[in-house]
Amino acid sequence: MNWLDDIRWDDKGLVPVIAQEAQTGDVLMFAWMNRDALAKTAELGEAVYFSRSRSKLWHKGEESGHIQKVHAIRLDCDNDVVLLQVTQLGHEPGIACHTGRHSCFFQKYENGQWVSTEPVLKDPGQIYK
Amino acid sequence: MNWLDDIRWDDKGLVPVIAQEAQTGDVLMFAWMNRDALAKTAELGEAVYFSRSRSKLWHKGEESGHIQKVHAIRLDCDNDVVLLQVTQLGHEPGIACHTGRHSCFFQKYENGQWVSTEPVLKDPGQIYK
Repeated sequence: MNWLDDIRWDDKGLVPVIAQEAQTGDVLMFAWMNRDALAKTAELGEAVYFSRSRSKLWHKGEESGHIQKVHAIRLDCDNDVVLLQVTQLGHEPGIACHTGRHSCFFQKYENGQWVSTEPVLKDPGQIYK
Repeated sequence: MNWLDDIRWDDKGLVPVIAQEAQTGDVLMFAWMNRDALAKTAELGEAVYFSRSRSKLWHKGEESGHIQKVHAIRLDCDNDVVLLQVTQLGHEPGIACHTGRHSCFFQKYENGQWVSTEPVLKDPGQIYK
């Protein structure tokens, strides 16, 4: 498991993770992993994050069905940021955001304010029952 | 400047920032901004980060010439991660990484190890004189 030792975990034992849709290049979301989460992600081929609010592993899609199939795990030049290239499963087009949108990055800066630019593809009340 | 107040700055007054190449969708790098850095980025239309190691603003490209022209500033659903969509200037193809590579995410996980997958486009000794 040397590849896990190569990572410069932060003082909380975490590393920031960017999830990008492999097919479109869209940046879907940003989350954190601890060592167990990254090991599990590589083992399953599905994204497993560490939820900082709940302090436990979070297999993305476990509630919503919006699993992320992992095609590539990449690491940056400083060994302290991970990039996942994924297919966002469970809905077409993929929904990565808990608001029911494709991407979490749906707010765009325009003339001094943040404007929502992406449609809600599915009512969150229908995603999390 | 209300749009800056909308951001949930962390306990160090920082927010994580992902820089993505607008034309290709490639994720180029990951860095941090404080309030001044984000205000300056919006004002200049060029990426200005906060260097945690040097504890000061870092106008990307100030030494290397590898300026990032900013097309869009996006914010995630939790208001605590910023996504910049940029054109990476100063070299063709663009060099975002201090190692002289296009992207900082040039290490790929393969069979239990990290493998470098992108060529060095320019010798770092020639970039930082």
